[in-house]
Amino acid sequence: MVINFAAGPAKLPEEVLKEVQTNLLNCNGSGISVMEMSHRSSNYAKIQETAIADLRELLNIPQNYKVLLMQGGGTGQFAASALNLIGTTGTADYVITGSWSAKAAKEAAQYGKVNAVLPKLASYTTVPRQSTWKLDPNAAYVYYCDNETVEGVEFDFVPEVKAPLVVDMSSNFLSRPIDVSKFGMIYAGAQKNIGPAGVTVIIVREDLIGKHLKVTPSILNFELMDKNSSLLNTPPTFGIYVMGLVFKWIKANGGVAGMSQRSKAKSQFIYNIIDQSNGFYYCPVERQVRSRMNVPFRIGSSTGNEQLEKEFLAKAEAEGMIQLKGHRSVGGIRASLYNAITLEETQKLAKLMLEFYENNKN
Amino acid sequence: MVINFAAGPAKLPEEVLKEVQTNLLNCNGSGISVMEMSHRSSNYAKIQETAIADLRELLNIPQNYKVLLMQGGGTGQFAASALNLIGTTGTADYVITGSWSAKAAKEAAQYGKVNAVLPKLASYTTVPRQSTWKLDPNAAYVYYCDNETVEGVEFDFVPEVKAPLVVDMSSNFLSRPIDVSKFGMIYAGAQKNIGPAGVTVIIVREDLIGKHLKVTPSILNFELMDKNSSLLNTPPTFGIYVMGLVFKWIKANGGVAGMSQRSKAKSQFIYNIIDQSNGFYYCPVERQVRSRMNVPFRIGSSTGNEQLEKEFLAKAEAEGMIQLKGHRSVGGIRASLYNAITLEETQKLAKLMLEFYENNKN
Repeated sequence: MVINFAAGPAKLPEEVLKEVQTNLLNCNGSGISVMEMSHRSSNYAKIQETAIADLRELLNIPQNYKVLLMQGGGTGQFAASALNLIGTTGTADYVITGSWSAKAAKEAAQYGKVNAVLPKLASYTTVPRQSTWKLDPNAAYVYYCDNETVEGVEFDFVPEVKAPLVVDMSSNFLSRPIDVSKFGMIYAGAQKNIGPAGVTVIIVREDLIGKHLKVTPSILNFELMDKNSSLLNTPPTFGIYVMGLVFKWIKANGGVAGMSQRSKAKSQFIYNIIDQSNGFYYCPVERQVRSRMNVPFRIGSSTGNEQLEKEFLAKAEAEGMIQLKGHRSVGGIRASLYNAITLEETQKLAKLMLEFYENNKN
Repeated sequence: MVINFAAGPAKLPEEVLKEVQTNLLNCNGSGISVMEMSHRSSNYAKIQETAIADLRELLNIPQNYKVLLMQGGGTGQFAASALNLIGTTGTADYVITGSWSAKAAKEAAQYGKVNAVLPKLASYTTVPRQSTWKLDPNAAYVYYCDNETVEGVEFDFVPEVKAPLVVDMSSNFLSRPIDVSKFGMIYAGAQKNIGPAGVTVIIVREDLIGKHLKVTPSILNFELMDKNSSLLNTPPTFGIYVMGLVFKWIKANGGVAGMSQRSKAKSQFIYNIIDQSNGFYYCPVERQVRSRMNVPFRIGSSTGNEQLEKEFLAKAEAEGMIQLKGHRSVGGIRASLYNAITLEETQKLAKLMLEFYENNKN
């Protein structure tokens, strides 16, 4: 039995995988695989439309927001968000709280002026309160990353700003209820909480569509994608199918409120062990912005005892717990607890952590 | 039993689909689905590296060519080819022989001067010989589409030009041997001959890399993709896995030479029926450039008898032959005979065509 704590691509619900497997050669009675379906067929249209309708229901998306399905993941949207939205004023505000928002700001700088609203942080372990931000009154939008996957930093608030908010929710999408109407644009690569790699969900307020720069490639052009119901070109049909099954699974498991409860319980379990270990386990992230999705920690000291960490990872692997190694840029351990990870699986990790603590403390 | 003549996404080899199904929850003994694998894991690295190595072997790709795996399909590469290659001179030659090369030229015009080497064709049913082309001596590259999927027009020659050749092989990739060294860049969306939608293969000569325009989004940037071994961002891992299995299937079935033989035999079967029907079936495409992949035809007359065509499609569907309707822009019938379509399946279509002819001629 393997428990997969990968940061993404990540664990998918077993029920979903089994349904994909059962129907792999004959999807919805069509006699063919979903991979073989024409994206212009009525069979496929139903799959895509149902996925979008279920997502609208899950997040209670207002009618004046469009849902677009695209390719290229978060990195594609680093460019797309700027290409589609920065043109109105030529400048945008970026709240850089981790590796991913930093990359987004760098990409956006290819298309306009990027204003960093925070001084460069010494480490990505906090989200400075909004009162300290230096917003540009001329910004076309304010960009932030709701959950920084590498560093395990998650916003505990939605900024209140005048310009449209653009948010990268790739790694905590559908893990808690959100008020979509507070945002100009929300996007998420699927490969963390909602599906396989290769699909990206964009939720965008319709009045923000149609203002793209002339150099916008068609595959990143919100107006073209919207006009063509995300069928401008061949969409990643299989990924959209699996994502649709995940939406159904979320609906059947309490919706985003249910996911929120699970996420809180799971992450609290691990953070409690860290906090009660007298410094044996160390999470560098400030408490109020600790991520419910990605729990990074060091073992042995605040900078990590590499020998102990290696031993821990080996023990975990021996017990079937894989992909617990921290991101190569920060080291240590990282447990990703996306929606598909169960409480039982989290408890197994907790048990290992407790045992390892008992055997190695002092 | 369904026979799927779709133009793409299209039929995949049944052996491949069965292998995907068997291993869906446990890929290569990893205990997890390929969809759940971290793209940085050794398990996944082996999948991607093997796929690329097999492709190199299939096409005998020279060492000074890089293989990149990207997202965004052909439409993405309409932009990417121009963004990465047009900058050296600011202008490029486009040979417009069908819907797809026309779209490519339109997209490229966002990034430089597009020179149409042909006068606008009255209909896309021919490939004018190269002696009639008006090439721009200043062109950074010469672009063409080797097989126009909508109109069923396939090049019967490789142009001999001084500038690097850029070719869209989306719909006939790996259907015949090619001399890669004659090209600057070859690309193909996977969803016709080699896999599910959402993966794009790029083969590019290394000296052409690194000359992209500043506005190039990272996900379409050949230099960044090459430097990161196509792992700049999360690749469409599942699609790459399936594509790799298709490469193995092609190797086991005679390689591209085997596919070429099959393609010739299958398409000849259908074209013979058309040609021997005294005009009952009508293919508008000039004989020497008739596509081996997509066979478009009208029924009843050269402009089509819509009632007869409707009846034909209904009869085909009743016998399990689906997706034979022509592209909405041209109407009529289109049979797509990609690599995964067997000779036996083609013969069933041929049988139906003969019966329908006997029952409806004069």
